[in-house]
Amino acid sequence: MVSSEEWHSELTTRRAAVWAIAQQRECDLVLVFGSFGHAEPFRYLTNFAPVLGDAWGIVTSPEAISCVLNFNWQLEEARQISGIQDWHGLFHPVPTVIELLAARAPKKIGVVGLHRLPFVDFEAIKQALPDTAFVDIGADVALLRRKKSALEIRLLREACRITDAAFDGVRQEIKPGVTENELAARLAYIMQSMGAALSFEPTVVSGIDQPIPIRMPTSRRLQAGDSVMIDIGAMYQGYQADATRTFVLGRPNSEQTKVWQTILNAYQAAFDQIRPGVPCNEAQKAAVTVIEGAGYTLRHRIGHGIGLATSFEWPSVDTETEPFVAGMTICIEPGIYVPGAGDMKLEDDVLVTETGCETLTNSSREPVITQ
Amino acid sequence: MVSSEEWHSELTTRRAAVWAIAQQRECDLVLVFGSFGHAEPFRYLTNFAPVLGDAWGIVTSPEAISCVLNFNWQLEEARQISGIQDWHGLFHPVPTVIELLAARAPKKIGVVGLHRLPFVDFEAIKQALPDTAFVDIGADVALLRRKKSALEIRLLREACRITDAAFDGVRQEIKPGVTENELAARLAYIMQSMGAALSFEPTVVSGIDQPIPIRMPTSRRLQAGDSVMIDIGAMYQGYQADATRTFVLGRPNSEQTKVWQTILNAYQAAFDQIRPGVPCNEAQKAAVTVIEGAGYTLRHRIGHGIGLATSFEWPSVDTETEPFVAGMTICIEPGIYVPGAGDMKLEDDVLVTETGCETLTNSSREPVITQ
Repeated sequence: MVSSEEWHSELTTRRAAVWAIAQQRECDLVLVFGSFGHAEPFRYLTNFAPVLGDAWGIVTSPEAISCVLNFNWQLEEARQISGIQDWHGLFHPVPTVIELLAARAPKKIGVVGLHRLPFVDFEAIKQALPDTAFVDIGADVALLRRKKSALEIRLLREACRITDAAFDGVRQEIKPGVTENELAARLAYIMQSMGAALSFEPTVVSGIDQPIPIRMPTSRRLQAGDSVMIDIGAMYQGYQADATRTFVLGRPNSEQTKVWQTILNAYQAAFDQIRPGVPCNEAQKAAVTVIEGAGYTLRHRIGHGIGLATSFEWPSVDTETEPFVAGMTICIEPGIYVPGAGDMKLEDDVLVTETGCETLTNSSREPVITQ
Repeated sequence: MVSSEEWHSELTTRRAAVWAIAQQRECDLVLVFGSFGHAEPFRYLTNFAPVLGDAWGIVTSPEAISCVLNFNWQLEEARQISGIQDWHGLFHPVPTVIELLAARAPKKIGVVGLHRLPFVDFEAIKQALPDTAFVDIGADVALLRRKKSALEIRLLREACRITDAAFDGVRQEIKPGVTENELAARLAYIMQSMGAALSFEPTVVSGIDQPIPIRMPTSRRLQAGDSVMIDIGAMYQGYQADATRTFVLGRPNSEQTKVWQTILNAYQAAFDQIRPGVPCNEAQKAAVTVIEGAGYTLRHRIGHGIGLATSFEWPSVDTETEPFVAGMTICIEPGIYVPGAGDMKLEDDVLVTETGCETLTNSSREPVITQ
């Protein structure tokens, strides 16, 4: 999908951009922290995140990076994926991080990932380097991630393709008697067997009586008349899709019909706002107008960025006043949760283009299943 | 498996124990932080961890807890699972955490989970409460988790039973032509369809030429003669199994035979040390003696605790000098990685008993597959 050479070129460009930010802020080196479960800044610079534990990067030039993990199992894999040679694995990594930093006697360190860096670890680092200044350059580096590169868009397309395949693959299996757990497991199976990981644990919520936006799947068996809301995402080489389909088992009741039509209208109203120059939160406003106009409440934001994360990726469409720009990738996800209709949500991933937008997830949005 | 009443009783006991620690340290209230991906202290007190984001708990008495998450989707599920009523979901949770803390005008706050609490968040909290002292009581609370309760052991048994079922379920599918990704996906499918989540992404490493302790599965197709090392774990209601089987496709070569016999000997030598009173690291020493005696190197520790975590659960068997005690749960995992044999590892979960130990994972350990 992406060759080593392409990755090398991409990572070289990213590191040069981060190094330029550091130089502008008069930093001698950059400390990058990737938190277990939430390591995006580290992954952005290395194309690697460990299966367990934190990741630390010490960048001393655009070409020279040393990395430290909690475990030594994956060092060879990390070398292959990142093209970086200097990896260390220690259950208590901070003393090694301090050693690597101190060896350079830096005057000023630019920190990326400070918003996740544990207090006790950062205190230990500061105490070990009493003559060094620390400056948070995370916000500047985060700006680099807003507009996706051609390579990033290719990877997101692949993540979306695999997500679509999961929806298509389970459509025939959504029938009375199957459990939420079984459906979730099948969805994960399809994505993982295609070489993807998961953006998050698959969500399957069925029934019409106790609507809540999200919960983990249960052993509940699907019944005729159910709404079945499925929210999943494939993660391909770190890039994360996030999409939702809702299925109705049999003929929809009047509440399901009304809710679904309202969702389709809100979805279209939001999409109508997605083009360069329009503030992101206009999409939220447009969807709210439709949903409240139909007598419902929008209980969560209409969308957010997708990339190396889903829900934490910029922008949060409800509050962001910056305009859409070509190359941004987001999801749009109107949902309504009321008794009688259950959980109903439609979510697609979207690339903002020069003239408007392109939908990246395209599996059937038809909810009705009669089998 | 575990009724709401049993969970309520268990959580009440845990909270009372944490409250007693706080009172001993003269704290007015307790702040519990559960980090995204690594939220064990929070889960210990609430039986809940969100699918995405951090979790904050403000404990003002053994009965009164307020909880704050990044997202509002799962609040109803959190109420049902935890028995706690007061849940909040905010994309930027720290201002609400500060409000909840400040409302009590505490003189001294005991902090649990400080080792994961981000620097910027803790600084914001301290600045907002300039007259409040903060004391890290995490180490004291961690002691409560060392010896497992009867309920915890039941949940770990179930996690181990599901893990065994995954190994048993794929045994017939381990044959030339299948990819590592397909096997990993099938293992995950079996565990998830039984109602479990995953302790970590399934690891499948095949081949005999490029041994490394762990990497993510690839699209490599299994071949006759391969060693196939599979390291998986089911997570059941938060409790995490961690087990490994190695399979050889066809008749083992002489290196595979020698390595496997060495692993069996090291495994037995480690088990021979597991009984109350023996220092944990004696198990490591016994395994090292066997493996080095055979001319190999033990490239990672022989085991670690299992519970609400795997690799981060106390004890780290290589360095821990405290003795085994009845009620501890650990894994034992001798592995050898050499060209000609590939990745070979055997890992089982173990409960320390009054007189020795009991193995909790029991699927077939026979490596040879001829089909």
